[in-house]
Amino acid sequence: MRETKMICTMCGKEYLGEHFRCSCGEPLEIVIEKKTAVNISWRKSGILESFSDLLPELKDFNSLSMGEGLTPLTKIEHAMTDGLELFIKNETINPTWSFKDRGSYLAVLDAINKGYKHIGTVSTGNMAASVAAYSMRAGLKTTILISDSIPEEKISPIAIYGPRILKVKGDYDRLYFKSLELGKKKNIYFANSDIPMRVEGSKTIAFEIFLQLEGRVPDFVIVPTSSGGNVRGIEKGFRELKACGLSNSIPRMIVAQALGCCPIHQAFSSNDNQIEKFAHAHTIAHAIENPFPPSGNAVLRMLKENQGITVAVNEDEILTAQRQLAKRGLFGQPASAVAFASISKLRKEIGVKRAIVVAVLTGSGLKYPAILKEQPSVVEVTDIDSLQDLL
Amino acid sequence: MRETKMICTMCGKEYLGEHFRCSCGEPLEIVIEKKTAVNISWRKSGILESFSDLLPELKDFNSLSMGEGLTPLTKIEHAMTDGLELFIKNETINPTWSFKDRGSYLAVLDAINKGYKHIGTVSTGNMAASVAAYSMRAGLKTTILISDSIPEEKISPIAIYGPRILKVKGDYDRLYFKSLELGKKKNIYFANSDIPMRVEGSKTIAFEIFLQLEGRVPDFVIVPTSSGGNVRGIEKGFRELKACGLSNSIPRMIVAQALGCCPIHQAFSSNDNQIEKFAHAHTIAHAIENPFPPSGNAVLRMLKENQGITVAVNEDEILTAQRQLAKRGLFGQPASAVAFASISKLRKEIGVKRAIVVAVLTGSGLKYPAILKEQPSVVEVTDIDSLQDLL
Repeated sequence: MRETKMICTMCGKEYLGEHFRCSCGEPLEIVIEKKTAVNISWRKSGILESFSDLLPELKDFNSLSMGEGLTPLTKIEHAMTDGLELFIKNETINPTWSFKDRGSYLAVLDAINKGYKHIGTVSTGNMAASVAAYSMRAGLKTTILISDSIPEEKISPIAIYGPRILKVKGDYDRLYFKSLELGKKKNIYFANSDIPMRVEGSKTIAFEIFLQLEGRVPDFVIVPTSSGGNVRGIEKGFRELKACGLSNSIPRMIVAQALGCCPIHQAFSSNDNQIEKFAHAHTIAHAIENPFPPSGNAVLRMLKENQGITVAVNEDEILTAQRQLAKRGLFGQPASAVAFASISKLRKEIGVKRAIVVAVLTGSGLKYPAILKEQPSVVEVTDIDSLQDLL
Repeated sequence: MRETKMICTMCGKEYLGEHFRCSCGEPLEIVIEKKTAVNISWRKSGILESFSDLLPELKDFNSLSMGEGLTPLTKIEHAMTDGLELFIKNETINPTWSFKDRGSYLAVLDAINKGYKHIGTVSTGNMAASVAAYSMRAGLKTTILISDSIPEEKISPIAIYGPRILKVKGDYDRLYFKSLELGKKKNIYFANSDIPMRVEGSKTIAFEIFLQLEGRVPDFVIVPTSSGGNVRGIEKGFRELKACGLSNSIPRMIVAQALGCCPIHQAFSSNDNQIEKFAHAHTIAHAIENPFPPSGNAVLRMLKENQGITVAVNEDEILTAQRQLAKRGLFGQPASAVAFASISKLRKEIGVKRAIVVAVLTGSGLKYPAILKEQPSVVEVTDIDSLQDLL
């Protein structure tokens, strides 16, 4: 098997073999060799076979795949979408009910291909469950590092998969870099949020959207953004489709964040090249509450190239969007609703009138139902026979 | 459009048009007209297009589909499976994370095709969320009847879709029949657990298994069974594949129940033709806790024809199976784990040695996480720098 070539998203330094970040501190990206005739197709056997021409060479051992990806693209009719053709890329329909499964699958395969026996991650939610599921399924030693601020009820749905869980006190951002450092020392593959193989996983979202729209490229793709790995991957996917001649354009990427934690939005709005740690981060959109995203600077560079923008929405807008989407059948976690909440701002701020827009629904609303605190309105019926008058 | 022909599963009386049950009290089943050249294939556009040759004629209005069905069939390696080729049909990967979406989709389409403006159901969990999602998405008036014994935390994930919720005191079994009666009077389509269109939805599980096994028919299909609609549907699917010449055999159906509520198992074991209401039903497998299943008798008749059997497992076996499956990456609700828990009994009781077995994972483990009460084992790390010694 050829060694994977990687390139730094900032300084351009090239790498071969086992690396997670550039020595300059910025994220690496895998280089896909140009082929003459690239073919992508929708195969029920999974993303690896469907998109092998544009993915790193990986062997699936012991049927690791659980049917990640190949998720529906669902059309939304809504007053707000007047003039827009709006689709939801529904990543809640994945083996652990978030987009993370695409990257976890490829990362665990990569680890197995490279001979690792121990896999880890740093996460407080979706990614922890996802890595635990795939790594345990592969029969590998699995360690999940969680922050000590994680709500108790979010631990059981990670623990059920059987990994070792370490709850670490201290700076969560530092933990990201510390884990990569210790991984190198102790031969543990840390499948963290924006490592190159996760970005490859997110790429497949772009390929699927392209196939589902029958070769059309959306004008905008809105992605709830935390570490930045997912939006980078989706952009890379569209970039590669264009590079190999399958498409003529790349969508403008919309980075959607919660006002309560929007370090990328803040830097972008001030025209900075570097993100700063967001002070007092707090939002109901837990899954994207990352005050110092490790791909933040890479996302800023990407947005410039891509003519992308950032949008930030407040807590009320998030909860309203969550309910609006659910009334169209799609129940996402608050972080997911951030993308849908961004649409009206998108119209106002950049004057979008007619366009094809895809918003990514990143994780299931069942992920953290404690958020649905509002007392649901229920009518009490004391007698079955009185039902007739109520219907 | 032709009117759908239906036949009673007991007395054989035939019906045309809008009926949910036979006048004899037993469930009806839709008759699929025999065609000369039947074709089924896996199309990313959904179950209606993939299996149109073997489904009732239905038109999808306003893109109601949200990508229900076409779920993964995932192989399990496990000591317990020695000699068995074991697959999990993972129905948790559906728009509302249970198998119910297949039937809800078809039933809501059927209702729209027939001009109904109001949809209802009687449920305490998976089906309530599923009907709410599809009916609200279709823009129809939606009423969910729930039992007053439902735990409070199960209501929010239904209410989020925006239906009207009536919590009804009184006999839950009576509510099933009462709702059908009121539906007729007030022109409400009650998409209850085992109505003919739901059975058609479950049929598509069989078609997919057949395609995923590349034309092989499993020896056994194990289905966690509550009302009986799902297992009837899956058997009907395999029966139709054989009738139209696509396959040569039908799997033996295994009805899996919890010992805490096993009316079908009880009747089958006593060689009775009729189920009796199960007294003091109580199990952690809430989703299949139905003491008087409306398709119970129909399932007993089916099992006789099919050489099927019933299996019942206790609470410990259910929770152990849930954890065993999660360690292979699949986190199902306790009701789902009942199928996996049944495998060892299957081996013992009917001496199965070599066989292809499919167990249906009916709903996501996130559905009711309150069940994961056990304190997960977490190691507290007070200092990032001490992490090295722990990895």
